[in-house]
Amino acid sequence: MSPFIDRLALIGVGLIGGSIARAAREYGAVRSIVAAARTEATRKRVVELGIADQVVETNGEAANDADLVIVCIPVGASGPVAAEIAGSLKPGAIVSDVGSVKGQVLKDMAPHIPKGVHLIPAHPVAGTENSGPDSGFSELFVNRWCILTPLPGVDPAAADTLEAFWKALGSEVNRLDPASHDRILAITSHLPHLIAYTIVGTADDLGGHLNSEVLKYAAGGFRDFTRIASSDPTMWRDVFMNNREAVLEVLQRFQEDLFYLQRAIRWGEGDKLFDLFTRTREIRRALIHLHQE
Amino acid sequence: MSPFIDRLALIGVGLIGGSIARAAREYGAVRSIVAAARTEATRKRVVELGIADQVVETNGEAANDADLVIVCIPVGASGPVAAEIAGSLKPGAIVSDVGSVKGQVLKDMAPHIPKGVHLIPAHPVAGTENSGPDSGFSELFVNRWCILTPLPGVDPAAADTLEAFWKALGSEVNRLDPASHDRILAITSHLPHLIAYTIVGTADDLGGHLNSEVLKYAAGGFRDFTRIASSDPTMWRDVFMNNREAVLEVLQRFQEDLFYLQRAIRWGEGDKLFDLFTRTREIRRALIHLHQE
Repeated sequence: MSPFIDRLALIGVGLIGGSIARAAREYGAVRSIVAAARTEATRKRVVELGIADQVVETNGEAANDADLVIVCIPVGASGPVAAEIAGSLKPGAIVSDVGSVKGQVLKDMAPHIPKGVHLIPAHPVAGTENSGPDSGFSELFVNRWCILTPLPGVDPAAADTLEAFWKALGSEVNRLDPASHDRILAITSHLPHLIAYTIVGTADDLGGHLNSEVLKYAAGGFRDFTRIASSDPTMWRDVFMNNREAVLEVLQRFQEDLFYLQRAIRWGEGDKLFDLFTRTREIRRALIHLHQE
Repeated sequence: MSPFIDRLALIGVGLIGGSIARAAREYGAVRSIVAAARTEATRKRVVELGIADQVVETNGEAANDADLVIVCIPVGASGPVAAEIAGSLKPGAIVSDVGSVKGQVLKDMAPHIPKGVHLIPAHPVAGTENSGPDSGFSELFVNRWCILTPLPGVDPAAADTLEAFWKALGSEVNRLDPASHDRILAITSHLPHLIAYTIVGTADDLGGHLNSEVLKYAAGGFRDFTRIASSDPTMWRDVFMNNREAVLEVLQRFQEDLFYLQRAIRWGEGDKLFDLFTRTREIRRALIHLHQE
């Protein structure tokens, strides 16, 4: 495949930025990659890894003359970063991101983006619990969804270019409005993470000798939860701070459902548990049928 | 290794019974295996799989002349099954189980076990979300804990024999009193399963067009939860019905902790989230350090 993005700028080189860098080069989606990282340690490491053609210190320097700028940082920093790159963006450039929240990111970034530059938020629904440039790998996005949330009126050619870029990295691409994205991800991703964080904390608090025993016998369920609950703290704090309404709404529903089961356990109503457990098993089968496994 | 159990009887041949059968033979821990299954379909399948030397219809028939009887059924059936095998047990035989709850199982089984027979409950902390004789495999218990919960006064030689049996299957063995077992497993296994079942149900209930979208974009967190929530409904109903007090207690703590985070999200207190997320990441590292990963 011939490179169809001439110059790609990555703002931030963690798990996602580092994976985009590797994939974009390996799958021939770009001609050159410039990466900006905030700390000297990360810049040094990115140079050692050789996953970018150029490593720079400021975000503005990276954005300079780039055809596609992808902001790969915790969503809470989206606004300030947009302000930093605004003066360097060339006309016709595409600015995108990888954040797990879309409504607030659009609100934070849009005011800074100059006329003639195309802002098209994106969310590759992919990740691991690891962080930092070393954790990235080129296959991270293969067969994973990447959701674009372009606003009405965005240049169709620019949106098509971004879609082609993500497809080149192996993703399936779909488009949603930002509010739908944020509601869907609140239940499929944000709430599961919040719950995993909670239960691992609850287990730790049981304290005393139980503490080590809990870790010792951590089996099936709990081990999966500790993995989820070891995801990047800054990224996830920002997700909850920036998708507050949608998360609080699904959390409320979840609490009601959990109280329903709690009451069934207290009163020995095994049939209520059995009915739910049978239904959730069918949902899993539907999911496998959809090839998401 | 020379077989040190002459005749092993398995009551029930699902994931756990089917895995014990395969492992006991492969690792040379027994001379012969007799298996009892309730349905004709399962008996037929066990014969086809060739994982037992003899397949019988009644539990009493299986227990007859066995040196070790392992009851591998949902814990709610422990009492009736103990009553069924009681008349067939020979003096000196060991009766054990594999249930995820130990206090109630002991209460249900003990009254039926004749004098001279050694009742020693056990819980191999291992499993998958699959069920039935086909889902078993011989490596299921390798490097997994098996917890024995012998009551004071049990014959030490019999407990040692059971411990050696599980070690032969690859398990690490530890002993706990039944109440401690039930409290620890309530937080490490039972609560995580209850929460996974709940959240998958909540997601499904969001309904309408969101329903299919939820399945479509099921990523990281949610996919893990659907796997956990596809575990055997009967087994898990019985766990919650038989470990009620311990589950309700940890559920209460979990709810308090979740409300604390819910309030932090509502009031924009990101530092409270960040502090917890940092702590849970450290717990994961401790767990990996303990070689449970």
